[in-house]
Amino acid sequence: MASLQSPSSGLFLSDNAAAVHPRVWAAMRAADEADAPYDNDALSRELDERMEALFGRECAVLWVATGTAANCLALATMVQPHGAVVCHREAHIEVDEGGAPGFFLHGAKLLLAEGDGAKVTPATLRAVIDPIRDDVHQVQPHAVSVTQASEYGRAYRPQELAAIAALARGRSLGFHVDGARFGNAVAFLGCSPADAIGGADALSFGFVKNGGMSAEAVVLFDSAAATLARYRRKRAGHLQSKGRYMAAQIHAMLEDDLWLDNARAANAAAQEIATASGERLLHPVEANELFVRLSATEREALRAQGFAFYDWGVDAARFVTAWNTPPDAAQALAKAIAAL
Amino acid sequence: MASLQSPSSGLFLSDNAAAVHPRVWAAMRAADEADAPYDNDALSRELDERMEALFGRECAVLWVATGTAANCLALATMVQPHGAVVCHREAHIEVDEGGAPGFFLHGAKLLLAEGDGAKVTPATLRAVIDPIRDDVHQVQPHAVSVTQASEYGRAYRPQELAAIAALARGRSLGFHVDGARFGNAVAFLGCSPADAIGGADALSFGFVKNGGMSAEAVVLFDSAAATLARYRRKRAGHLQSKGRYMAAQIHAMLEDDLWLDNARAANAAAQEIATASGERLLHPVEANELFVRLSATEREALRAQGFAFYDWGVDAARFVTAWNTPPDAAQALAKAIAAL
Amino acid sequence: MASLQSPSSGLFLSDNAAAVHPRVWAAMRAADEADAPYDNDALSRELDERMEALFGRECAVLWVATGTAANCLALATMVQPHGAVVCHREAHIEVDEGGAPGFFLHGAKLLLAEGDGAKVTPATLRAVIDPIRDDVHQVQPHAVSVTQASEYGRAYRPQELAAIAALARGRSLGFHVDGARFGNAVAFLGCSPADAIGGADALSFGFVKNGGMSAEAVVLFDSAAATLARYRRKRAGHLQSKGRYMAAQIHAMLEDDLWLDNARAANAAAQEIATASGERLLHPVEANELFVRLSATEREALRAQGFAFYDWGVDAARFVTAWNTPPDAAQALAKAIAAL
Amino acid sequence: MASLQSPSSGLFLSDNAAAVHPRVWAAMRAADEADAPYDNDALSRELDERMEALFGRECAVLWVATGTAANCLALATMVQPHGAVVCHREAHIEVDEGGAPGFFLHGAKLLLAEGDGAKVTPATLRAVIDPIRDDVHQVQPHAVSVTQASEYGRAYRPQELAAIAALARGRSLGFHVDGARFGNAVAFLGCSPADAIGGADALSFGFVKNGGMSAEAVVLFDSAAATLARYRRKRAGHLQSKGRYMAAQIHAMLEDDLWLDNARAANAAAQEIATASGERLLHPVEANELFVRLSATEREALRAQGFAFYDWGVDAARFVTAWNTPPDAAQALAKAIAAL
Repeated sequence: MASLQSPSSGLFLSDNAAAVHPRVWAAMRAADEADAPYDNDALSRELDERMEALFGRECAVLWVATGTAANCLALATMVQPHGAVVCHREAHIEVDEGGAPGFFLHGAKLLLAEGDGAKVTPATLRAVIDPIRDDVHQVQPHAVSVTQASEYGRAYRPQELAAIAALARGRSLGFHVDGARFGNAVAFLGCSPADAIGGADALSFGFVKNGGMSAEAVVLFDSAAATLARYRRKRAGHLQSKGRYMAAQIHAMLEDDLWLDNARAANAAAQEIATASGERLLHPVEANELFVRLSATEREALRAQGFAFYDWGVDAARFVTAWNTPPDAAQALAKAIAAL
Repeated sequence: MASLQSPSSGLFLSDNAAAVHPRVWAAMRAADEADAPYDNDALSRELDERMEALFGRECAVLWVATGTAANCLALATMVQPHGAVVCHREAHIEVDEGGAPGFFLHGAKLLLAEGDGAKVTPATLRAVIDPIRDDVHQVQPHAVSVTQASEYGRAYRPQELAAIAALARGRSLGFHVDGARFGNAVAFLGCSPADAIGGADALSFGFVKNGGMSAEAVVLFDSAAATLARYRRKRAGHLQSKGRYMAAQIHAMLEDDLWLDNARAANAAAQEIATASGERLLHPVEANELFVRLSATEREALRAQGFAFYDWGVDAARFVTAWNTPPDAAQALAKAIAAL
Repeated sequence: MASLQSPSSGLFLSDNAAAVHPRVWAAMRAADEADAPYDNDALSRELDERMEALFGRECAVLWVATGTAANCLALATMVQPHGAVVCHREAHIEVDEGGAPGFFLHGAKLLLAEGDGAKVTPATLRAVIDPIRDDVHQVQPHAVSVTQASEYGRAYRPQELAAIAALARGRSLGFHVDGARFGNAVAFLGCSPADAIGGADALSFGFVKNGGMSAEAVVLFDSAAATLARYRRKRAGHLQSKGRYMAAQIHAMLEDDLWLDNARAANAAAQEIATASGERLLHPVEANELFVRLSATEREALRAQGFAFYDWGVDAARFVTAWNTPPDAAQALAKAIAAL
Repeated sequence: MASLQSPSSGLFLSDNAAAVHPRVWAAMRAADEADAPYDNDALSRELDERMEALFGRECAVLWVATGTAANCLALATMVQPHGAVVCHREAHIEVDEGGAPGFFLHGAKLLLAEGDGAKVTPATLRAVIDPIRDDVHQVQPHAVSVTQASEYGRAYRPQELAAIAALARGRSLGFHVDGARFGNAVAFLGCSPADAIGGADALSFGFVKNGGMSAEAVVLFDSAAATLARYRRKRAGHLQSKGRYMAAQIHAMLEDDLWLDNARAANAAAQEIATASGERLLHPVEANELFVRLSATEREALRAQGFAFYDWGVDAARFVTAWNTPPDAAQALAKAIAAL
């Protein structure tokens, strides 16, 4: 188990600090030669077309440095300052983005829906939306946001997303997908990327957790939204001058489906651990996060063996695998859990 | 002149898209091993101490991806939403940041002062501040911001900054320095970094134009401001999860004064061209930007020789050198201008 | 019952549209002679002293046109844009102000606490505050806001407020009281105004629902907060030029305790109805609002007799009395309910 | 001259604190009977139709308490947070609204145009707009705002407004008229109200300076804008619950053209003084404001006679007449100036 102590002591803490994939490094180095600044370089200009090939729809792609910025810039194309986003009570935008939606949306609210596994449903969305009086005293919903895969590592099925999209359309709401771990969801679902967003108006396509360094993509399927988002990106200080290094990361991730291969590797490691966890699992494992019921004593025992992870409340732990989780580390963790 | 056509055809357009310095690349690669996310990694945690050594004062250092973000986060520690920043009419925050100050400062204004070479003086600042009635009907100044080196490549002398700092203190105004090209100013002045900011409360210390990739530093000399800025950075979507790659860039730039060496190289190239430009210069050349009076015909002639640059109004051009401007390219441009 | 049909058909709908008290009218007319504009007139300048006499503490008083503006301007003195207000899930600022807190606080959040009768307690506040991680990823509370009397017509007892104030002080949180129906609460409690706010930093002192026309008071017990609020009031378009008509309303309400007399009248009318409602009451009646369990058929029967009120969910109704509710109208309603 | 000392010592300071017209008082008193709250009362609901009759176009009317709120709510229907309003350098929204546009427009900028008499022209607007690069680094104009009558008491002629409107339409800019003294302009021009706004999208129709107490009208000639403005009015705390007293003021002002009669009276008083001022006038007098060249000694002499007014710089004074300026007071001032 020595291999888990150093340098891999953080192995199961999160995928958000994993090393950068060698092909991403190579693409960045290959972009070193000067090109036009901001997003006028050749690599940035080629992103739209590349993403259109993936989704089979016209779209605009804007790179930004974080998922928080991606989510908020996407939502800002749909939500007026006096409106609201409906999302799950445990959505990342609600819980872990330091109030960024309030900033980017100029004071708009988040309205919180319920749902197992941090997934909303048409019914739980309606439970939030329907009681809102249609008058100026109450904040009106302008958009719905879902996370694919969810904050508990659950994947929305295409038909689930289609139902949410239909609800959104019927109420004239924008529809946004937070895809911080979109690759993991698509790898699990085995469906097309398009089906994995269910006709959403915008996707935050995450790469950083999946082998990238610092580039996430805001994918906008509406050209007016794209124009607005470009102004807002600059205004938020997110338009980097050496943007080609950002675009290069995304190209590398899309090239030969590296994003899917990386996600599959992380998912496979998670499945190894999931199988060993059995009844301990709080949620079915459909991506690369595991929430495992473990007593304080059990967690201590695992940590004594060199495994690193976050506590999840008082009687559980969260393990996250990454594109580069060594298979033997996953096996070792699986064995250690099984042996408890 | 073939060397100027490709890959160096953009040589004198701007320093903002220049290649990344090899030592910066090396430092980033060396940071590949996973560490704690966000700014909890060892490299990020060591930045304060490193910068304190440079400035001889306690400070806090926050990396961000752009100068716009750095400027606005720094100013947000000084300016209430109902207040204003006094800056030069041609300041980058006024002219080229897409309204970012209005966003980060929640609607605060920029009040515009005059001054040769895009440099304000106590007198031009007072000309803006003094007529403001001290009542709620008029927006009150909360901070002063200067650019070192200025947007016309001029460096504030230490005594000039000290006078501005004294004015700011006397009026209870914050004092911010936009140091997008701070290295070039210090290299020119030959003074200490501390003297080159004149007791400012905050510095946007730029590295991207000087050999970095995507890391600028917000340097805050007030601990309460630092706490606030950390929350605001996250809220603006600028807290990257793999922050160690950001910190690594800054460490590399500071290591063995790479930032000064790079700036000196850029300044030297600019001086070569300046000497040849003589009476054509619109502003004394003190950093790495040149504003040269050139007719349309002359500009065309230079471009025909492979030189790239921006027009500056109808009868001038702007040339910018960078850390990696080849000396022979600078000489070639100097000769070409002299030959006009 | 003819008297309830017209003009008094709206009698129990709300106190927020009741006629203006004759003494308020008289005071406004008496202010007709021109004086200095904004809040520089004699009446506005005398407000601080008058309110200090009432509360026995130094304070600053700013008139504004609505309770929403009063609440939000008060909270803006305590809450940074990246922070949050903790309030009850059914607080007016959360439910009925059209997102105004998000606007005036520049995107700050409302964090929602539980509690019977729309009253929070130290325990329910801690249940919200304690789980918040002290890091930049989560929005931190900056203030607590309570409504006195609450949205269900319940009054906080002085010792309850003192406990909340102690919690707020202990966590360095601001403490705000929304007193849209403050008079009704004080009339019920029979305590001093000071005890009825429990050492709060700011009070929105409501007069419009209690016989005024268009003037609410922001009462700030901190001079720095007052300075800030004055700038923010102007910036929000709430500094009326003929402010003397605003100040006159507040003076009239405070003169000879008109505010208390009016509130006592409204409370007495409510008690008359409460007694008749008996077991039907959803909440004890401590101010001038009644929430009465009534079937659809029963509500229809009451409306057929000329009574006007709002449905409250599917099996209850809300009745609100006002300073000018005719005693015989209250008696008539009481009888009608008793007769159901 | 005793009559000028008290109570009329403030006679020429401003029209913004003048007494309320008796017919406005009467209309407010007549509205005392309870009606539906907010803007659901009969008087508020009748405003649209009444204003449509005046302008001969469909429109929506929202009352608010101040001209600042009216201007900013109107502009918020035209300007995105990343955009800008082009207005005169001395426009009230720039100079005297405490930064309210930055607040209501969520950080949008004001871009400042030149022009004699505080009036912009197509040429001065183009001088601001044309140099703006159409890229995300520069804030783009979204609207033009003019003041009718201007801050120097000048009236835009219908053809001048038509030219500005054509420019705005050609650039897809919104067009707003700040009519704080709209009555004075129309009274001077002798044209229709519609011609006096030249096809603007929105008008802030001022009544407070013209005999009202606390009600200004936002007049919106676009129904989508009206919906948005209604939400934003509530969100800004400007939706008063006893709105009928607001609507009553506006109805009284429009009834039998009281607004025009009052404006004519003020204008006539101003003309009396203007004639006596002759060469001393800094601006032609077209409304109810006079800017008169007067030395410090001369101003002192006038004040010694009981006249009140503001200094205007070091060698001039501003006099403002109102609907209720006594003709003999105007004559007295005229004589006093002539006698200097």
